[in-house]
Amino acid sequence: MLTRIDHIGIACFDLDRTVEFYRATYGFEVYHSEVNEEQGVREAMLRINGTDDGGASYLQLLEPTREDSAVGKWLAKNGEGVHHIAFGTADVDGDAEAVRGKGVRVLYDEPRTGSMGSRITFLHPKDCHGVLTELVTSAPPSADPSSAEH
Amino acid sequence: MLTRIDHIGIACFDLDRTVEFYRATYGFEVYHSEVNEEQGVREAMLRINGTDDGGASYLQLLEPTREDSAVGKWLAKNGEGVHHIAFGTADVDGDAEAVRGKGVRVLYDEPRTGSMGSRITFLHPKDCHGVLTELVTSAPPSADPSSAEH
Repeated sequence: MLTRIDHIGIACFDLDRTVEFYRATYGFEVYHSEVNEEQGVREAMLRINGTDDGGASYLQLLEPTREDSAVGKWLAKNGEGVHHIAFGTADVDGDAEAVRGKGVRVLYDEPRTGSMGSRITFLHPKDCHGVLTELVTSAPPSADPSSAEH
Repeated sequence: MLTRIDHIGIACFDLDRTVEFYRATYGFEVYHSEVNEEQGVREAMLRINGTDDGGASYLQLLEPTREDSAVGKWLAKNGEGVHHIAFGTADVDGDAEAVRGKGVRVLYDEPRTGSMGSRITFLHPKDCHGVLTELVTSAPPSADPSSAEH
């Protein structure tokens, strides 16, 4: 069951400049940053608010680390903007199977590693009215390798 | 001060079909629906979660009521997908002035009426790294003309 908007994924050409835009314009601060080589992105998570399922909602700013990554190809075609949206769930495996059973294409056979040790999968945008949609289960605090310093 | 992700605005060709997709796929229900003639949209708000500033986060599904509306023109160019993101604030007037003072173009001279009696303005996407960004102050419960039945 999807219980929150976990994040909005925003693709950008220059992560540092985009982080600085959100800080200077709105006061949003970087909560966490990492490089995800599997996804081919350098990313910063800006925590916007807590949610009533015990989680939080973030902006996820994404700069490709290589042109042939999914985000790199998307940026070359579309320019900067909203790349995907993500819903939080306690059970990404079960929810991915449930939506697959409803005829929505799930892009990974098994969930992969996302931000802050989470487990994620994506749904095909053509099956979701044009919206690339991610399902994400956050890591338990003790299992989040970045929790010591976000 | 922006204290939550208020909503993600998603443009669609057929509101009823898109509402049904979100209901059947994820179990999200319509919390509120209305026609905003000024914006040229028919819309449905799907409430996803509560937020720790006392508000909530929604998906806002938007179908244009006329081709020459902003959403109608956007859809004709881009197809279905994420149209804008919105941050919630207690003071849309003050925050709009603050971002204007930082050189970000604010599209309205004064906030206009948004979903559920809220007051909204938009920031130019070219000044926001490609993201059409809305600032929104919710109506107080007593002032929301739709509050009796959402």
